[in-house]
Amino acid sequence: MARIVYKYVVFIFYSLQILHYFFIIAHSKNLDEKKPCKRFVLYYHDILFNGTNATSATVANHTKLGNFNHGMLVVFDDPMTKDHHLLSPPVARAQGFYFYDMKTTYNAWFSYTLIFNSTEHKVTINIMGADLMGEETRDLSVVGGTGDFSMTRGIVTVCTDIAQGDYYFRLEMDIKLYECY
Amino acid sequence: MARIVYKYVVFIFYSLQILHYFFIIAHSKNLDEKKPCKRFVLYYHDILFNGTNATSATVANHTKLGNFNHGMLVVFDDPMTKDHHLLSPPVARAQGFYFYDMKTTYNAWFSYTLIFNSTEHKVTINIMGADLMGEETRDLSVVGGTGDFSMTRGIVTVCTDIAQGDYYFRLEMDIKLYECY
Amino acid sequence: MARIVYKYVVFIFYSLQILHYFFIIAHSKNLDEKKPCKRFVLYYHDILFNGTNATSATVANHTKLGNFNHGMLVVFDDPMTKDHHLLSPPVARAQGFYFYDMKTTYNAWFSYTLIFNSTEHKVTINIMGADLMGEETRDLSVVGGTGDFSMTRGIVTVCTDIAQGDYYFRLEMDIKLYECY
Repeated sequence: MARIVYKYVVFIFYSLQILHYFFIIAHSKNLDEKKPCKRFVLYYHDILFNGTNATSATVANHTKLGNFNHGMLVVFDDPMTKDHHLLSPPVARAQGFYFYDMKTTYNAWFSYTLIFNSTEHKVTINIMGADLMGEETRDLSVVGGTGDFSMTRGIVTVCTDIAQGDYYFRLEMDIKLYECY
Repeated sequence: MARIVYKYVVFIFYSLQILHYFFIIAHSKNLDEKKPCKRFVLYYHDILFNGTNATSATVANHTKLGNFNHGMLVVFDDPMTKDHHLLSPPVARAQGFYFYDMKTTYNAWFSYTLIFNSTEHKVTINIMGADLMGEETRDLSVVGGTGDFSMTRGIVTVCTDIAQGDYYFRLEMDIKLYECY
Repeated sequence: MARIVYKYVVFIFYSLQILHYFFIIAHSKNLDEKKPCKRFVLYYHDILFNGTNATSATVANHTKLGNFNHGMLVVFDDPMTKDHHLLSPPVARAQGFYFYDMKTTYNAWFSYTLIFNSTEHKVTINIMGADLMGEETRDLSVVGGTGDFSMTRGIVTVCTDIAQGDYYFRLEMDIKLYECY
């Protein structure tokens, strides 16, 4: 009899260990990171002030440091669309600023809020980070959100879709949220 | 005898399931979100430079995009009080900047640090987001903190308490922290 | 016999309690906070534009509020080294901006990205907060990161290592990350 009880105790002991093992897995943040709880791609259109239809304008001119617009500061209220077309109905606005920050090449820094269309309370995502224009893709940080994206965090992978002269450029933004509430 | 042992094993098996159930609940982030671990309301007073007593000043003038101060950039060091009165002893300072960013209406974007009075190490909260002035209330993100609010995150719900001409406005800021350490 | 079974059940009951206790400890965020998952000290060198070798330049001049450079806005692309020497090979770049924000003393506000040298995908850390220059040390917030520091959070403790006239200053930055993935 005692042997049977002993077997069950051993069984339960291993059960606890297995439970603990699942516990460890559940806490391994690496797992969470691989699959975003929310992901979508949007296109950002920036039309720099040069007459009509502009969505952004230069607030401070570039400095004399180098020849790559260092210090040029732009404030924008840009449309975000689901496809490449500038004239598609925007699903969100991107409001914020960017500036160029290198003397040896074009390189920028962004901080902005995505504001989504919604009937009631506004839904926003706050983003900041370096736009390393020399890289094919570069990552910005999602540092917070409100409304349906309250308290979210994540990564925005940016790549230049097109740049036409000095006055229009389009960025593909692949928005991956890893904390949803 | 074996039947008794069997009953106990079943009992323990269910115990494990119940434990697992609590485990799931503890991880449901929705619960945490509903009740902030810390919440307080403060009033932000901005007196734009126009002679004496100013607490902020325009760093870059508005651009020519629209007629709503697009691009006007203001750096501030503003008092935060517990009630509506500008002259109440401030419990914190708000240091940072805002700028207007739309061509069709007044709309702003903020990034700043709340610095609380304290005898020793400074306590701060870092905040950023869009101030959608057309909405009755709008939410900014608390993206970090230091000292007693180390690593905090949360939401700041802002509403305009009063706006007197171009040179004084007061915002009610309802600060809700959901991550306290 | 039943007594033996009873003893084992009691033993298992306590095991569950102990497991639960570990569960509580694992969730106590205070513990995590005391030991960063990653920590390193870097030196930030800022050489303001004044001819050659500059790494930063003034984008907007100071306002008339006080006599402490209120509103002066600087965009930088500064080297970060492992030791005090400006000419040591930089292990990272700091790209972003700061401005002075007080009328009664020198006090600044920073927002920037650390970009680490790496062969493949770029590794970055995003930082913001008040640089309370009157304090011996002051804390900024790490609000996000990408690449190997994806989604990180933490605290950067800053102290002024040296300030030479108006054109060079060096900050020691003690970077403590509490969320690693």
